[in-house]
Amino acid sequence: MTTDSDLAPLYLDDLAAGQVYDPRGESEPITAEAIKAYAAQFDPQPFHLDETAAAGTLFGGLAASGWHTASLTMRLLIQYGLPLAGGIVGAGLEELRWPRPVRPGDRLRVRSEVLEVRPSRSKPDQGLAKIRTTTLNQNDEPVQIFTGNLLVPRRP
Amino acid sequence: MTTDSDLAPLYLDDLAAGQVYDPRGESEPITAEAIKAYAAQFDPQPFHLDETAAAGTLFGGLAASGWHTASLTMRLLIQYGLPLAGGIVGAGLEELRWPRPVRPGDRLRVRSEVLEVRPSRSKPDQGLAKIRTTTLNQNDEPVQIFTGNLLVPRRP
Repeated sequence: MTTDSDLAPLYLDDLAAGQVYDPRGESEPITAEAIKAYAAQFDPQPFHLDETAAAGTLFGGLAASGWHTASLTMRLLIQYGLPLAGGIVGAGLEELRWPRPVRPGDRLRVRSEVLEVRPSRSKPDQGLAKIRTTTLNQNDEPVQIFTGNLLVPRRP
Repeated sequence: MTTDSDLAPLYLDDLAAGQVYDPRGESEPITAEAIKAYAAQFDPQPFHLDETAAAGTLFGGLAASGWHTASLTMRLLIQYGLPLAGGIVGAGLEELRWPRPVRPGDRLRVRSEVLEVRPSRSKPDQGLAKIRTTTLNQNDEPVQIFTGNLLVPRRP
Protein backbone atom coordinates (compact mmCIF):
# COMPACT_ATOMS: atom_id res chain seq x y z
CA MET A 1 0.00 0.00 0.00
CA THR A 2 1.89 3.01 -1.26
CA THR A 3 -0.50 5.85 -1.77
CA ASP A 4 -0.68 9.59 -1.93
CA SER A 5 -2.26 11.81 0.66
CA ASP A 6 -5.45 12.33 -1.35
CA LEU A 7 -6.59 8.94 -0.12
CA ALA A 8 -10.09 8.79 1.35
CA PRO A 9 -10.28 8.61 5.16
CA LEU A 10 -9.26 5.22 6.51
CA TYR A 11 -11.39 3.39 9.07
CA LEU A 12 -10.27 0.57 11.33
CA ASP A 13 -11.90 -1.82 8.83
CA ASP A 14 -9.46 -0.62 6.14
CA LEU A 15 -6.35 -1.45 8.18
CA ALA A 16 -4.61 -4.82 8.38
CA ALA A 17 -1.34 -6.01 9.89
CA GLY A 18 1.48 -5.82 7.37
CA GLN A 19 0.27 -2.76 5.48
CA VAL A 20 3.07 -0.25 4.87
CA TYR A 21 2.38 3.39 4.15
CA ASP A 22 5.39 5.10 2.60
CA PRO A 23 4.47 8.61 1.43
CA ARG A 24 6.91 10.66 -0.62
CA GLY A 25 6.34 13.99 1.10
CA GLU A 26 9.24 15.26 3.17
CA SER A 27 9.95 18.27 5.35
CA GLU A 28 11.82 21.39 4.38
CA PRO A 29 15.44 21.26 5.56
CA ILE A 30 15.57 21.72 9.35
CA THR A 31 17.41 24.94 10.12
CA ALA A 32 19.83 25.54 13.00
CA GLU A 33 17.53 28.42 13.95
CA ALA A 34 14.51 26.09 14.27
CA ILE A 35 16.54 23.63 16.37
CA LYS A 36 17.61 26.44 18.72
CA ALA A 37 14.14 28.01 18.88
CA TYR A 38 12.49 24.74 19.91
CA ALA A 39 15.27 24.12 22.44
CA ALA A 40 15.02 27.60 23.94
CA GLN A 41 11.33 27.01 24.56
CA PHE A 42 11.29 23.37 25.65
CA ASP A 43 14.73 21.75 26.00
CA PRO A 44 17.38 24.35 26.81
CA GLN A 45 20.49 22.18 26.95
CA PRO A 46 23.85 23.19 25.41
CA PHE A 47 23.85 20.51 22.67
CA HIS A 48 20.52 21.85 21.35
CA LEU A 49 21.23 25.58 21.75
CA ASP A 50 24.69 26.46 20.55
CA GLU A 51 27.09 25.03 17.94
CA THR A 52 30.25 25.73 19.94
CA ALA A 53 28.93 24.35 23.21
CA ALA A 54 27.51 21.33 21.36
CA ALA A 55 30.86 20.47 19.79
CA GLY A 56 32.24 19.44 23.18
CA THR A 57 29.35 17.12 24.08
CA LEU A 58 28.57 13.52 23.14
CA PHE A 59 26.55 14.87 20.19
CA GLY A 60 29.70 16.40 18.67
CA GLY A 61 27.69 19.30 17.25
CA LEU A 62 24.28 20.93 17.25
CA ALA A 63 21.47 18.35 17.36
CA ALA A 64 17.71 18.68 17.60
CA SER A 65 16.01 17.72 20.85
CA GLY A 66 14.43 14.28 20.55
CA TRP A 67 11.13 15.94 21.45
CA HIS A 68 11.61 18.35 18.57
CA THR A 69 12.09 15.35 16.26
CA ALA A 70 8.91 13.84 17.73
CA SER A 71 7.04 17.11 17.15
CA LEU A 72 8.29 17.37 13.55
CA THR A 73 7.27 13.74 13.00
CA MET A 74 3.75 14.55 14.19
CA ARG A 75 3.52 17.36 11.65
CA LEU A 76 4.68 15.01 8.89
CA LEU A 77 2.06 12.45 9.95
CA ILE A 78 -0.64 15.12 9.70
CA GLN A 79 0.62 16.31 6.33
CA TYR A 80 1.52 13.02 4.65
CA GLY A 81 0.69 10.12 6.95
CA LEU A 82 -2.16 7.60 7.00
CA PRO A 83 -5.37 9.63 6.56
CA LEU A 84 -7.16 8.07 9.52
CA ALA A 85 -10.82 8.91 9.97
CA GLY A 86 -11.14 10.96 13.16
CA GLY A 87 -7.55 12.18 13.02
CA ILE A 88 -4.42 10.91 14.71
CA VAL A 89 -5.35 10.23 18.32
CA GLY A 90 -2.75 8.32 20.28
CA ALA A 91 -3.76 6.16 23.23
CA GLY A 92 -0.11 5.72 24.12
CA LEU A 93 3.28 4.58 22.90
CA GLU A 94 5.04 1.33 23.62
CA GLU A 95 8.40 2.43 22.31
CA LEU A 96 10.11 5.65 21.27
CA ARG A 97 13.77 5.68 20.21
CA TRP A 98 16.11 8.14 18.58
CA PRO A 99 18.79 6.03 16.84
CA ARG A 100 20.64 9.11 15.58
CA PRO A 101 20.27 12.86 16.00
CA VAL A 102 18.62 15.27 13.59
CA ARG A 103 21.14 17.82 12.32
CA PRO A 104 20.75 21.21 10.66
CA GLY A 105 19.96 20.68 6.97
CA ASP A 106 18.26 17.31 7.46
CA ARG A 107 15.04 16.66 5.55
CA LEU A 108 12.68 14.22 7.24
CA ARG A 109 9.94 11.90 6.06
CA VAL A 110 7.84 9.22 7.73
CA ARG A 111 7.03 5.59 6.99
CA SER A 112 4.36 3.69 8.90
CA GLU A 113 3.62 -0.01 9.22
CA VAL A 114 0.44 -1.47 10.66
CA LEU A 115 1.42 -4.13 13.21
CA GLU A 116 -1.94 -5.07 14.70
CA VAL A 117 -5.61 -4.13 14.47
CA ARG A 118 -7.93 -4.71 17.43
CA PRO A 119 -11.64 -3.84 17.39
CA SER A 120 -12.81 -2.67 20.81
CA ARG A 121 -15.05 -5.07 22.74
CA SER A 122 -16.69 -2.40 24.85
CA LYS A 123 -17.01 0.27 22.11
CA PRO A 124 -18.21 -1.34 18.88
CA ASP A 125 -17.70 1.87 16.89
CA GLN A 126 -13.91 2.00 17.35
CA GLY A 127 -10.73 0.07 17.93
CA LEU A 128 -6.97 0.31 18.29
CA ALA A 129 -4.36 0.11 15.56
CA LYS A 130 -0.79 -0.56 16.63
CA ILE A 131 1.41 1.28 14.17
CA ARG A 132 5.20 1.60 13.97
CA THR A 133 6.32 4.90 12.48
CA THR A 134 9.91 5.41 11.39
CA THR A 135 11.21 8.91 10.71
CA LEU A 136 13.97 8.91 8.11
CA ASN A 137 16.46 11.57 7.10
CA GLN A 138 17.49 12.39 3.53
CA ASN A 139 20.00 9.51 3.60
CA ASP A 140 17.27 7.01 4.50
CA GLU A 141 18.69 6.68 8.00
CA PRO A 142 16.18 6.31 10.84
CA VAL A 143 16.27 9.21 13.29
CA GLN A 144 13.22 8.14 15.29
CA ILE A 145 11.20 4.95 15.68
CA PHE A 146 8.03 4.72 17.67
CA THR A 147 5.28 2.18 18.11
CA GLY A 148 1.98 3.64 19.13
CA ASN A 149 -1.59 2.56 19.67
CA LEU A 150 -3.99 4.80 17.79
CA LEU A 151 -7.71 5.14 18.38
CA VAL A 152 -9.45 4.59 15.03
CA PRO A 153 -13.23 4.67 14.35
CA ARG A 154 -14.93 1.78 12.57
CA ARG A 155 -16.72 2.41 9.30
CA PRO A 156 -20.23 3.66 10.15
CA MET B 1 14.75 11.74 48.44
CA THR B 2 12.83 14.99 48.21
CA THR B 3 15.21 17.76 47.37
CA ASP B 4 15.38 21.18 45.84
CA SER B 5 16.90 22.01 42.50
CA ASP B 6 20.11 23.42 44.00
CA LEU B 7 21.31 19.86 44.46
CA ALA B 8 24.81 19.11 43.18
CA PRO B 9 25.00 17.20 39.87
CA LEU B 10 24.00 13.56 40.24
CA TYR B 11 26.13 10.77 38.81
CA LEU B 12 25.03 7.21 38.13
CA ASP B 13 26.67 6.26 41.44
CA ASP B 14 24.22 8.55 43.27
CA LEU B 15 21.12 6.86 41.84
CA ALA B 16 19.38 3.77 43.20
CA ALA B 17 16.12 2.01 42.45
CA GLY B 18 13.30 3.32 44.60
CA GLN B 19 14.49 6.93 44.85
CA VAL B 20 11.68 9.41 44.25
CA TYR B 21 12.34 12.97 43.20
CA ASP B 22 9.33 15.19 43.79
CA PRO B 23 10.23 18.84 43.22
CA ARG B 24 7.76 21.58 44.09
CA GLY B 25 8.35 23.76 41.04
CA GLU B 26 5.46 23.93 38.61
CA SER B 27 4.73 25.60 35.29
CA GLU B 28 2.85 28.80 34.72
CA PRO B 29 -0.78 28.11 33.72
CA ILE B 30 -0.90 26.77 30.15
CA THR B 31 -2.76 29.25 27.98
CA ALA B 32 -5.17 28.45 25.16
CA GLU B 33 -2.88 30.57 22.99
CA ALA B 34 0.14 28.38 23.76
CA ILE B 35 -1.88 25.22 23.04
CA LYS B 36 -2.95 26.62 19.66
CA ALA B 37 0.51 27.96 18.80
CA TYR B 38 2.18 24.59 19.39
CA ALA B 39 -0.60 22.86 17.44
CA ALA B 40 -0.36 25.25 14.50
CA GLN B 41 3.33 24.44 14.21
CA PHE B 42 3.37 20.71 14.93
CA ASP B 43 -0.05 19.10 15.38
CA PRO B 44 -2.72 21.03 13.45
CA GLN B 45 -5.81 19.02 14.33
CA PRO B 46 -9.18 20.62 15.23
CA PHE B 47 -9.18 19.51 18.90
CA HIS B 48 -5.84 21.32 19.45
CA LEU B 49 -6.56 24.44 17.38
CA ASP B 50 -10.03 25.76 18.04
CA GLU B 51 -12.42 25.68 21.03
CA THR B 52 -15.58 25.38 18.93
CA ALA B 53 -14.26 22.64 16.66
CA ALA B 54 -12.82 20.82 19.71
CA ALA B 55 -16.19 20.77 21.50
CA GLY B 56 -17.56 18.29 18.97
CA THR B 57 -14.65 15.82 19.22
CA LEU B 58 -13.86 13.08 21.72
CA PHE B 59 -11.84 15.64 23.70
CA GLY B 60 -14.99 17.68 24.37
CA GLY B 61 -13.00 20.92 24.29
CA LEU B 62 -9.61 22.38 23.53
CA ALA B 63 -6.78 20.06 24.61
CA ALA B 64 -3.02 20.26 24.24
CA SER B 65 -1.31 17.91 21.81
CA GLY B 66 0.29 15.00 23.65
CA TRP B 67 3.59 16.08 22.07
CA HIS B 68 3.08 19.54 23.53
CA THR B 69 2.60 17.95 26.96
CA ALA B 70 5.79 15.96 26.36
CA SER B 71 7.65 19.13 25.35
CA LEU B 72 6.39 21.01 28.43
CA THR B 73 7.44 18.05 30.58
CA MET B 74 10.94 18.25 29.15
CA ARG B 75 11.16 21.91 30.12
CA LEU B 76 10.01 21.08 33.65
CA LEU B 77 12.63 18.34 33.88
CA ILE B 78 15.32 20.83 32.85
CA GLN B 79 14.05 23.44 35.32
CA TYR B 80 13.18 21.30 38.31
CA GLY B 81 14.02 17.66 37.60
CA LEU B 82 16.86 15.43 38.73
CA PRO B 83 20.07 17.44 38.17
CA LEU B 84 21.87 14.70 36.27
CA ALA B 85 25.55 15.26 35.48
CA GLY B 86 25.86 15.61 31.72
CA GLY B 87 22.26 16.74 31.28
CA ILE B 88 19.15 14.81 30.37
CA VAL B 89 20.08 12.54 27.48
CA GLY B 90 17.50 9.92 26.61
CA ALA B 91 18.50 6.65 24.98
CA GLY B 92 14.86 5.82 24.41
CA LEU B 93 11.47 5.36 26.03
CA GLU B 94 9.72 2.14 26.89
CA GLU B 95 6.34 3.71 27.54
CA LEU B 96 4.64 7.03 26.98
CA ARG B 97 0.98 7.55 27.92
CA TRP B 98 -1.39 10.46 28.22
CA PRO B 99 -4.07 9.38 30.75
CA ARG B 100 -5.93 12.70 30.43
CA PRO B 101 -5.57 15.82 28.35
CA VAL B 102 -3.92 19.08 29.35
CA ARG B 103 -6.45 21.92 29.31
CA PRO B 104 -6.08 25.71 29.23
CA GLY B 105 -5.28 26.94 32.74
CA ASP B 106 -3.58 23.74 33.87
CA ARG B 107 -0.35 24.04 35.85
CA LEU B 108 2.02 21.12 35.47
CA ARG B 109 4.77 19.61 37.59
CA VAL B 110 6.89 16.47 37.34
CA ARG B 111 7.71 13.61 39.68
CA SER B 112 10.38 11.04 38.86
CA GLU B 113 11.14 7.61 40.29
CA VAL B 114 14.33 5.67 39.67
CA LEU B 115 13.36 2.12 38.63
CA GLU B 116 16.71 0.62 37.73
CA VAL B 117 20.40 1.56 37.49
CA ARG B 118 22.71 -0.30 35.15
CA PRO B 119 26.43 0.51 34.77
CA SER B 120 27.60 -0.04 31.20
CA ARG B 121 29.84 -3.04 30.58
CA SER B 122 31.48 -1.64 27.50
CA LYS B 123 31.80 1.99 28.67
CA PRO B 124 33.00 2.09 32.30
CA ASP B 125 32.47 5.85 32.57
CA GLN B 126 28.68 5.72 32.11
CA GLY B 127 25.50 3.72 32.49
CA LEU B 128 21.74 3.74 32.07
CA ALA B 129 19.13 4.82 34.58
CA LYS B 130 15.56 3.71 33.96
CA ILE B 131 13.34 6.48 35.29
CA ARG B 132 9.57 6.84 35.32
CA THR B 133 8.41 10.44 35.12
CA THR B 134 4.82 11.39 35.85
CA THR B 135 3.51 14.80 34.84
CA LEU B 136 0.75 16.00 37.15
CA ASN B 137 -1.74 18.82 36.84
CA GLN B 138 -2.79 21.19 39.64
CA ASN B 139 -5.29 18.58 40.89
CA ASP B 140 -2.54 15.95 41.25
CA GLU B 141 -3.98 14.05 38.29
CA PRO B 142 -1.44 12.42 35.94
CA VAL B 143 -1.55 13.87 32.42
CA GLN B 144 1.51 12.00 31.15
CA ILE B 145 3.54 9.00 32.27
CA PHE B 146 6.72 7.88 30.61
CA THR B 147 9.47 5.44 31.39
CA GLY B 148 12.78 6.29 29.81
CA ASN B 149 16.34 5.10 29.82
CA LEU B 150 18.74 7.96 30.44
CA LEU B 151 22.46 8.00 29.76
CA VAL B 152 24.21 9.07 32.97
CA PRO B 153 27.96 9.46 33.55
CA ARG B 154 29.69 7.74 36.45
CA ARG B 155 31.47 9.82 39.04
CA PRO B 156 34.98 10.55 37.70
